[in-house]
Amino acid sequence: MDNQINQDKNMKIGWIGTGVMGFWMCRHLMEAGYSVTVYNRTKEKAKGLLEMGAKWADTPYGAAKEADIVFTIVGYPKDVREVYFGESGIFKSCAEKGGKYLVDMTTTEPSLAVEIYEKAKETGCRALDAPVSGGDVGAREARLTIMSGGDKDVFDKLLPLFSFMGKNIKYTGKAGTGQHTKMCNQIAITGIMIGMSEALIYGYKAGLNLEDMVNTIKGGAAASWSLENYGPRILKGNYDPGFMVEHYIKDMGIALEEAKRMNLNLPGLTLVHQLYTVLKAMGHGTSGTHSLVLALDKLSGAGFAEKK
Amino acid sequence: MDNQINQDKNMKIGWIGTGVMGFWMCRHLMEAGYSVTVYNRTKEKAKGLLEMGAKWADTPYGAAKEADIVFTIVGYPKDVREVYFGESGIFKSCAEKGGKYLVDMTTTEPSLAVEIYEKAKETGCRALDAPVSGGDVGAREARLTIMSGGDKDVFDKLLPLFSFMGKNIKYTGKAGTGQHTKMCNQIAITGIMIGMSEALIYGYKAGLNLEDMVNTIKGGAAASWSLENYGPRILKGNYDPGFMVEHYIKDMGIALEEAKRMNLNLPGLTLVHQLYTVLKAMGHGTSGTHSLVLALDKLSGAGFAEKK
Repeated sequence: MDNQINQDKNMKIGWIGTGVMGFWMCRHLMEAGYSVTVYNRTKEKAKGLLEMGAKWADTPYGAAKEADIVFTIVGYPKDVREVYFGESGIFKSCAEKGGKYLVDMTTTEPSLAVEIYEKAKETGCRALDAPVSGGDVGAREARLTIMSGGDKDVFDKLLPLFSFMGKNIKYTGKAGTGQHTKMCNQIAITGIMIGMSEALIYGYKAGLNLEDMVNTIKGGAAASWSLENYGPRILKGNYDPGFMVEHYIKDMGIALEEAKRMNLNLPGLTLVHQLYTVLKAMGHGTSGTHSLVLALDKLSGAGFAEKK
Repeated sequence: MDNQINQDKNMKIGWIGTGVMGFWMCRHLMEAGYSVTVYNRTKEKAKGLLEMGAKWADTPYGAAKEADIVFTIVGYPKDVREVYFGESGIFKSCAEKGGKYLVDMTTTEPSLAVEIYEKAKETGCRALDAPVSGGDVGAREARLTIMSGGDKDVFDKLLPLFSFMGKNIKYTGKAGTGQHTKMCNQIAITGIMIGMSEALIYGYKAGLNLEDMVNTIKGGAAASWSLENYGPRILKGNYDPGFMVEHYIKDMGIALEEAKRMNLNLPGLTLVHQLYTVLKAMGHGTSGTHSLVLALDKLSGAGFAEKK
């Protein structure tokens, strides 16, 4: 079986987590011809997949029971823990039948990824951590970046399945390094978001035409994916989520905990985490991360939010 | 004359400031066939231009005296002030003979740009503020971004000359808006630099292969010009300046003063300015701005600077 994962469409897949990301990632595997059993806390969100022929399970255990490969992409580290270690969790199925591959694609704690990796080994299974970046659009268009840690031979075996979900798929090293790489990604973005937000607030108060300003600076050394993609949305007052504030706060919280553990002082991350907490308190927990400009606006009473 | 600036190579140009940027910008005009008189505080730095046939003047006044168009790109706002308003400054030549175009390409205070614009008008001259971005490489390759404020008719007349120096040339509005747009550019970059630096320090302490990490995240939502261009240099331990720390501190200082004047709270800019001040105190005033990672390293004793 090992060398034929891509070919062997009889491989059974368990899929746990059918939110904005997981829904599309699972769907791509179904479209590729795989047979899937899904579990999600809210069954309603799996409806589209069930209509396509996915089987339903009432527990993570149920989704994993018959599966050769189990993918998980849920919300918070506590959800990951429940899904794997809970009474009706994945490891219950591993204890019954070894040889499964387990892939957690949630952004979660690197230490939890290591814990899952080790517990999997104990039960005769193999685990990868494989968080993603690229948002709902990346998931829908199968253009995700996938950062995967664990054993290289397992990564190589699952690479064909990842390739149905993403474009930029990287093996990052031992268990937990996929999560650490994702943290680096999120930390780099914290800076980009505050720089962009402050530039917009400054430009607004200085009386600049903001469309012109953004178009001018995005072609040079201030260029970023965020400015290119979020700049125009902000200027239209569209704060719909590409990626939600409350999920970003979770990720930054994990990065801060890890930094603390490593005795690292990351003042930029600390500041931006605080500002996003302000933003959430303002009622923007489910807005997109590019709404950070509204927190800075609030702190200065600049009036950006009220601009026409 | 007005509609023929590009064609009329008999137009005389005064060029003040032949540092890493000005040298190349002036050279492009000379290569285009313009006759130039240069002034620089350190004559040695103008040597290459004099060898190409530029005339030398001992004062800004001397460089401006016979010129139809005067370009300035010097260091600090006080230098700009001296070059324009000083005893042997440009305005002394305007008082003798009106009709000149004055273009300050230094990154300086928006209020000083307005002052020059108004004084020029008083003397029968016309002024633009036109700071640039793109660094020494952009200057050398004539690929600068040029952000120009002042009267539109003057901008239109000088556009052909700008086009010998840059690719992305934008009229930004009334006098001072070129400088404000440049401030937005610099503010956006403050965030990008701290985010990138903290991601690198975090990844280093987490034991990641940093080349792999950078290559993974630069293809997604964390993508930025800085990560693409400075990431590899940092990983090689090459902190040679594309843009110097002490000049960036000047720019951030101007932005902070302007923010204060506008009652704006820009906590990210404030933090990054402080960190660059630490970096300068560490002896990195003339290193490149991407050496910020060394200040963060110092604050945590992470050992990044000593990595192989």
